[in-house]
Amino acid sequence: MLVYEILDKKRKAQVLTDEEISFMVDSYTKGEVPDYQMAAFLMAVAMGGMDDAETAALTKCMVKSGEMADLSSIRGVKVDKHSSGGVGDKTSPVVGAIVAACGVPVAKMSGRALGFSGGTLDKLESIPGYTTTIGKERFFEIVNSVGVSIIGQTGNLAPADKKIYALRDVTATVESIPLIASSIMSKKIAGGADAVLLDVKVGNGAFMKDEKSAADLARCMVAIGKSFGKETVALLTQMNQPLGWNVGTALEIAEMIGILKNEVHGDVRELCLLLAANMLYLAGKGSMEECDAMAGQALADGKAFEKFRAMVQAQGGDVSVVDEPSLFPQAKYIEPCRARQAGYIQSFQTDQVGMAALVLGAGRETKDASIDHAAGIRLCVKQGDHVEEGSVLAYLHTSDEGRLARGQALMKDAISIGADKPEPLLLVYKRIPDDG
Amino acid sequence: MLVYEILDKKRKAQVLTDEEISFMVDSYTKGEVPDYQMAAFLMAVAMGGMDDAETAALTKCMVKSGEMADLSSIRGVKVDKHSSGGVGDKTSPVVGAIVAACGVPVAKMSGRALGFSGGTLDKLESIPGYTTTIGKERFFEIVNSVGVSIIGQTGNLAPADKKIYALRDVTATVESIPLIASSIMSKKIAGGADAVLLDVKVGNGAFMKDEKSAADLARCMVAIGKSFGKETVALLTQMNQPLGWNVGTALEIAEMIGILKNEVHGDVRELCLLLAANMLYLAGKGSMEECDAMAGQALADGKAFEKFRAMVQAQGGDVSVVDEPSLFPQAKYIEPCRARQAGYIQSFQTDQVGMAALVLGAGRETKDASIDHAAGIRLCVKQGDHVEEGSVLAYLHTSDEGRLARGQALMKDAISIGADKPEPLLLVYKRIPDDG
Repeated sequence: MLVYEILDKKRKAQVLTDEEISFMVDSYTKGEVPDYQMAAFLMAVAMGGMDDAETAALTKCMVKSGEMADLSSIRGVKVDKHSSGGVGDKTSPVVGAIVAACGVPVAKMSGRALGFSGGTLDKLESIPGYTTTIGKERFFEIVNSVGVSIIGQTGNLAPADKKIYALRDVTATVESIPLIASSIMSKKIAGGADAVLLDVKVGNGAFMKDEKSAADLARCMVAIGKSFGKETVALLTQMNQPLGWNVGTALEIAEMIGILKNEVHGDVRELCLLLAANMLYLAGKGSMEECDAMAGQALADGKAFEKFRAMVQAQGGDVSVVDEPSLFPQAKYIEPCRARQAGYIQSFQTDQVGMAALVLGAGRETKDASIDHAAGIRLCVKQGDHVEEGSVLAYLHTSDEGRLARGQALMKDAISIGADKPEPLLLVYKRIPDDG
Repeated sequence: MLVYEILDKKRKAQVLTDEEISFMVDSYTKGEVPDYQMAAFLMAVAMGGMDDAETAALTKCMVKSGEMADLSSIRGVKVDKHSSGGVGDKTSPVVGAIVAACGVPVAKMSGRALGFSGGTLDKLESIPGYTTTIGKERFFEIVNSVGVSIIGQTGNLAPADKKIYALRDVTATVESIPLIASSIMSKKIAGGADAVLLDVKVGNGAFMKDEKSAADLARCMVAIGKSFGKETVALLTQMNQPLGWNVGTALEIAEMIGILKNEVHGDVRELCLLLAANMLYLAGKGSMEECDAMAGQALADGKAFEKFRAMVQAQGGDVSVVDEPSLFPQAKYIEPCRARQAGYIQSFQTDQVGMAALVLGAGRETKDASIDHAAGIRLCVKQGDHVEEGSVLAYLHTSDEGRLARGQALMKDAISIGADKPEPLLLVYKRIPDDG
């Protein structure tokens, strides 16, 4: 009868106790509460919300449901970074390399693509030989020797979250700030980091479409981190146009290498530096100003590039493509997408660009589909740029000619052009907390 | 994917189309939508609500899921009556008898006890021999010859409601106005009535605790009736003290007979007359004033009693107990509950009186328990009455001595006594619509 009372309270949007939340989550994980009662619970939470204490309690249950990664054999303060995902979001390896170059260990467990936002693992696997499934011991070894390693999740972290997420996915309860926040943070906490940096994307290419909901999510996650005694900082960053120029696995790795070689400039480089500086700050390396300078120096003097190269080598990757990205397998078909009128680039339907890259082969249309590492989109314009009629807006890359038409159809309306020059987009909306 | 979109819309409290609602309900009834998705849907409806059109569409799906009772072989306008249930609520047989005595056929399918509110069938079955499971043909025959028959539900009416109700029961989604309204009305509509009278109880012995929510429920049900072209009227009536004097099966039948013999007066008699007059009005027998007079006359001149007696006889019941209610089996143990102080009866914890009757044996503590027809409570006071210390407030009747202590414990705090004379309780709060 306790489950009934918990559901009844939450239906009335009342606050649950820690005991009620852990009873619900533990019993569900053990299979003692059926799916239909958990589904009703999740809908009640998605509609009625949860306060900070409830969300922290939910996160604790999910952390406790599995193993805690033990990073104690890695020397130094371990700072983890999480991005809520966006189109062309390729910062993790660059940021990891910069931070490692500044002497802070980066032991990163990353994920695969979710929807149209690419996954870091999928991107790194476009480097021939790079393996993301090395054992824990080798992972720690690489972090201690090279300074940075990026692998797939190991161990049974937060299995309750996994089971609950699968149910959210089929009951339309994914979009809920306390449920999103606890899901993300449970994995970060179980992952064993000492501090957490969150990159919350805002815009039409992100899960959070507006600054208000992104700020709510960020505040919620920062509060969870605090409840675990882990210093947590969130940056709200731009996702109303793709980040950088390339969307696709090898295309994005090539762009990352370009940043690390100081050949690629613009929003994505700036964001990488900012995220790296914040990670250094969280690791206690100095004031924000000092950390900014440190990150800039590590990128400029090539030390970050060296760290990235060393990581690729340590994880079995072919460094020849790192040294010369043109050696990456090239797409068989490369087709321009052209402007149908002259004017200024007004805005992007960023999600549609991501979807176009996916249908060209850069992502998975079904769970088990394989990725075409050569596929994707290379953009030639950013918001505010001026173009003529017939100018190339982007190149579509694919190994499957049959996919071009669908890609073009999606790109056709993804970039709008108008007569007036629009206001430039901010790169960062907000830092939470704003005392850094 | 359609189910997902429906859940997503309802989570955002958006309005669903008729097609979306019928897809959801039909697929669930056929077993194509799993319990967990329906549970999420029900929680979303319970929290986000439904407008009149959505509620009507939901009701239509539930009606269509099963058979429609065909009452065409009964001559005249068929008016059905439904009570939302309360403690001591014994109006149906009395009202049916009065209405039949005025020439309007009453073909009533009733239910069993739900929680502590007694069921009409359980009460009628306390009359030795009375059977509530006669076939449809015999039911119609009795209605046409006697004018009134009360039986259990026959046929497969609204099976979708049955399946959904079972899920609501374990997901804390019972308390939802559109879900309650559609559940009740689907069975009334499928029952084949031409018009419907609803007695919505308000107070601490009823499902609806306050006038506002009772009025919302009533308005919702009246709107559903209207959408089916069935004239529907709802009365909001008092349930802050038990209705009448007796609570229990045979005890209530005895009280009904007392009303029909013009020996019992007070709230329950008044309410029976009012409900009967409204049913006559809905059947087109005249103005409300004329119908009031007609009902009063049928009760006063004994014609209603004759109808009741004839119905009992036609359904196999022993009319000797109707003629002489003292022949009903009497409880082995009858114990007074006494006032612990002098003063005025301030208020009742009506649900606790109902629960006391139930634990004495008058109701079912588990689904399969049998009922002690002699058990129950005979009240000696109503709100506003003055008592002395030691006055008898009620008699507890049971055949099982072991149950007395629990009954007394519940009654102990069920009736509060104080120095000041309280305001008298209204019998009827409101009529919806109020144009009668």
